[in-house]
Amino acid sequence: MNHRLLDFKEWLKQKNIDSAFITSTENVFYLSGFHSDPHERLLGVAVFQDAEPFLLCPSLDVHDAKASGWEYEIIGCSDTDNPWEQLEKNIKKRVNHINKFALEKEHVNVERYEQLINRFNGAQFIAAEEKLRQLRLIKDDKEKEILKKAAEFADFAVQVGVNEIQEGKTELDIIAAIEYELKKKGISEMSFATMVLTGANAASPHGNPGLTKIKKGDLVLFDLGVVYKGYCSDITRTVAYDHVNDEQEKIYNIVLKAEVEAVKAIKPGITAKELDNIARNIISEAGYGDFFPHRLGHGLGIGVHEYPSITNTNELIIQEGMVFTVEPGIYVPNIAGVRIEDDVFVTKNGVDILTSYPKELQIIK
Amino acid sequence: MNHRLLDFKEWLKQKNIDSAFITSTENVFYLSGFHSDPHERLLGVAVFQDAEPFLLCPSLDVHDAKASGWEYEIIGCSDTDNPWEQLEKNIKKRVNHINKFALEKEHVNVERYEQLINRFNGAQFIAAEEKLRQLRLIKDDKEKEILKKAAEFADFAVQVGVNEIQEGKTELDIIAAIEYELKKKGISEMSFATMVLTGANAASPHGNPGLTKIKKGDLVLFDLGVVYKGYCSDITRTVAYDHVNDEQEKIYNIVLKAEVEAVKAIKPGITAKELDNIARNIISEAGYGDFFPHRLGHGLGIGVHEYPSITNTNELIIQEGMVFTVEPGIYVPNIAGVRIEDDVFVTKNGVDILTSYPKELQIIK
Repeated sequence: MNHRLLDFKEWLKQKNIDSAFITSTENVFYLSGFHSDPHERLLGVAVFQDAEPFLLCPSLDVHDAKASGWEYEIIGCSDTDNPWEQLEKNIKKRVNHINKFALEKEHVNVERYEQLINRFNGAQFIAAEEKLRQLRLIKDDKEKEILKKAAEFADFAVQVGVNEIQEGKTELDIIAAIEYELKKKGISEMSFATMVLTGANAASPHGNPGLTKIKKGDLVLFDLGVVYKGYCSDITRTVAYDHVNDEQEKIYNIVLKAEVEAVKAIKPGITAKELDNIARNIISEAGYGDFFPHRLGHGLGIGVHEYPSITNTNELIIQEGMVFTVEPGIYVPNIAGVRIEDDVFVTKNGVDILTSYPKELQIIK
Repeated sequence: MNHRLLDFKEWLKQKNIDSAFITSTENVFYLSGFHSDPHERLLGVAVFQDAEPFLLCPSLDVHDAKASGWEYEIIGCSDTDNPWEQLEKNIKKRVNHINKFALEKEHVNVERYEQLINRFNGAQFIAAEEKLRQLRLIKDDKEKEILKKAAEFADFAVQVGVNEIQEGKTELDIIAAIEYELKKKGISEMSFATMVLTGANAASPHGNPGLTKIKKGDLVLFDLGVVYKGYCSDITRTVAYDHVNDEQEKIYNIVLKAEVEAVKAIKPGITAKELDNIARNIISEAGYGDFFPHRLGHGLGIGVHEYPSITNTNELIIQEGMVFTVEPGIYVPNIAGVRIEDDVFVTKNGVDILTSYPKELQIIK
């Protein structure tokens, strides 16, 4: 049995939970290796303290579920079966009585919850998310390899975008070119809506790309990532077009220093808070503290925002196997928006940087 | 007050529901005109039998919510506010006691449901989806105009795809080109993942596009749509590359006849079942009944699948203002996959076809 299922079963034992039924696409993938969006149909992994787990899925997915490597029972439900009846029957086959039942309270909707309440009458329902977030926090070597590859596609995408920069092109033109080249390489999903922001737009930490045309003297900010084998990457780079003024250059180099120093400090034992503060202090001491309004970074894996959260209040101790972004930024309205973001994997003694697109200020002619 | 809110309030009165809180992006947009994905933050429209409705949203969205035309109170919640406390307070300001509370049971998650249960202790919770689906079933002139424009972008997208057909290009190459050209026109969201399927892939009703290369003699199936001003289009066209064999041509013309005849029959008073049967009988009489495994069509609007469902069991009477797809198909493994799909708007006496890309068999040289 894989360590994920074993660790999850261990939690059920500790909490005296009789059964869990996990239904979000991300966590089903995490526990079973099967990645599928069943839309309105029911898909889930049932896990028990001792009994064997099972996967319940639409009949038409049984073949793919087997092919994904799931080694235990698969219950296929056709559109004329009642999947809740199947779920109840197969859970009750494994445990006599359910006193405590775990589910994802942020994912399961009221309609489904009412089904569970009716079928497991009197059970206490426990949220499973926090445990699953903790499990997903530490990545293994196989996950690292996939995340590295996802990061390489992100590097490639930035290069495509930089090559496209030209007077009169719009933000959307550049996004279209990036996604076109990625599609040709077989990448069919981005980890979030690709952002290319230019000029005043780049000076907003959450601008929306549109029909703004690139002009000489603009900073152009790329923030993007791909989904590769179910895992996400997330990179930001900012480049200048044609020329750069003194304040833009100054701001760029402060952000670069904050990013490089924070990355350098990463190793097991340091806290999230300390990392955030390294970058934040550099930016504050340079006089731009008010213009860095967000956390230093966020965890990355099957989800594009997962644990750990790298904030200046999080006392979490960084451990080997964590993967997160480091992305300080400075946004001064009408002057400059600069953010530099890498994805990192914490090693035994330090850090591997997964993204590798150059970070020194580039002036694109 | 717009007819949507008035009709919804009327339903609350009929059902004796004291308050409704509607939170899905689609239905918030439908009721308020405000289109926003608040991610994990709380966004919703509270509606009452008599009292004025209000919109609750993240503080940072208040400006956009006002700009979207919402005329009633807006409660903005910052990240340090408790939005549930705000919701409770503002609902209790309007109604003394909540006996019945309506919400979207397919949308609200257990975590949020528990908040509502705690704050409106003893209330009975009623599902609001079915009523909202019924309201959204009949489109007004403004919606028709937007849907027509969305359909025009879909026509354009098919034309781009057809122009790209060339030996050796992959399905993903063509999708990339389509989405590139749409992005350049300002379309940033497709209504579902664009499908371009070729050869054996097209002969599966739910194939996935990939790195399959187009060959002479293939049929190429395009199924795609765009989101324009919050509304969806959905078109399918099938073309032949270089040449076509007799069976492919025969199948094409049966599907075409089924599609054209079904569309011709649309007018207020006919049932969904009758429409499905017109197409299904043509296909069955030609000997391909077993190879048309899906319904004739589905409603279209803010969602890409909404009411009405055009099936051979749905006795629903078609009415003016309904918008739906007509999309018969025949899929014979290893021989041909053909589907032709239009979006239609039911008028007083017949039908307006929103999509207009040509339907006669095209052989692309």
